[in-house]
Amino acid sequence: MTIVKNDLYDYGLYIYQDNDNFKFSLDSILLAEFVDVSKKMDTIVDFCSGNCPVPLILSTKKKVDIIGIEIQENIYNLACKSIEENNLNNRIKMINDSIKNVKKYIKDESVDIVTCNPPYFKYNEGVSLTNISMEKAIARHEIEMNLEDIMISARYILKNRGILYLVHRCDRLEEIIVMLNKYHFSMKELQFIYTNDNEASMVLIKAIKNGNIGSLIVNKGINVANMNSYKGIFRG
Amino acid sequence: MTIVKNDLYDYGLYIYQDNDNFKFSLDSILLAEFVDVSKKMDTIVDFCSGNCPVPLILSTKKKVDIIGIEIQENIYNLACKSIEENNLNNRIKMINDSIKNVKKYIKDESVDIVTCNPPYFKYNEGVSLTNISMEKAIARHEIEMNLEDIMISARYILKNRGILYLVHRCDRLEEIIVMLNKYHFSMKELQFIYTNDNEASMVLIKAIKNGNIGSLIVNKGINVANMNSYKGIFRG
Repeated sequence: MTIVKNDLYDYGLYIYQDNDNFKFSLDSILLAEFVDVSKKMDTIVDFCSGNCPVPLILSTKKKVDIIGIEIQENIYNLACKSIEENNLNNRIKMINDSIKNVKKYIKDESVDIVTCNPPYFKYNEGVSLTNISMEKAIARHEIEMNLEDIMISARYILKNRGILYLVHRCDRLEEIIVMLNKYHFSMKELQFIYTNDNEASMVLIKAIKNGNIGSLIVNKGINVANMNSYKGIFRG
Repeated sequence: MTIVKNDLYDYGLYIYQDNDNFKFSLDSILLAEFVDVSKKMDTIVDFCSGNCPVPLILSTKKKVDIIGIEIQENIYNLACKSIEENNLNNRIKMINDSIKNVKKYIKDESVDIVTCNPPYFKYNEGVSLTNISMEKAIARHEIEMNLEDIMISARYILKNRGILYLVHRCDRLEEIIVMLNKYHFSMKELQFIYTNDNEASMVLIKAIKNGNIGSLIVNKGINVANMNSYKGIFRG
């Protein structure tokens, strides 16, 4: 474990990282930027929060209660350290548990927005993982939770017409849409992310709990390679 | 009915249209261009063929049997007239029936590729349609068939791993994906089409019968406004 204190891009905040095992990714920044904070809201919950880049950025955009949930204790501790460092204890709370246990902490139908930058890869149980790589593996692979768990837990805590924001790999879009549909989320907005001129690598999804199907908007794709700032990239 | 003989863009073919009730759209050109004809194949079937722009263009790309299915007799007659005019009777056959009756004409698991530019809009049965507008209405609204009928009929005639190509409005992408999944098609490729700089208007979909889920590629979106030729636009 090599803990370092970094600038969180140009958001005027610090973030603690573990150079050996866990650093936040650009995808989390894009997810936070994709959230539309223009409406009235009381509570945002960030699933699979990691060292909490999404709550940190959202705290700069909206005066609202933000709760982050992170299952891995070491990473949860980094998040708490960053919240402390930025004097955001009264704005951001962290929960150290699985998103599958969200009912223990958060009342049903009480949340306006759920954000989630989940593990991207399916877990192949045949692959053996050493203890050293387990922290990385849990952050990257669906070992502790999967897409369906996101839907179940988000659906439980979100208000009617509450919004789920997800970032994920394009190649899993089909599964995500089928799963959203199963849990009565309708897609409202898709934002594809490119890092080259050929094919999209990531997708940002905005979905509404109990929303009407058939009103999807697909935004113009954005190539994020070689950018220095992401502030207002989507809704600026 | 005002029948006119037009050039089919720069494909060196003629196409008959009815200026009052039915003209092909750019979407059909894009659909034909999106078809990958690089592999060995015997048969392509075009659902909701209209005045058969898709079969006409595909005939310039691949020496293969092409069958078009069009339910409306007046429009079917335009297609036959165009095929005759272009001396393509030995390459393209038209069927004047609903795609729901495809079993009557085409053997199960015998087709390599199905293309479809379907009616885009849901049919609101409350809206009354005069006889005069019925021809346009059937081409634009899901009066005679719907998304599920496409899946059922395409699945029936396609070989295992056969390919379904669709063009549709972006706002219905979610329904399409859920329906594809229900009939065990997996998405292989998405191509979003823009006519402005804000949001995509149309989407081209390549899906594989009994394909593996999780290998979707999302191509870079293309703005088709102000183009003079579409030849090779996607796979040129």
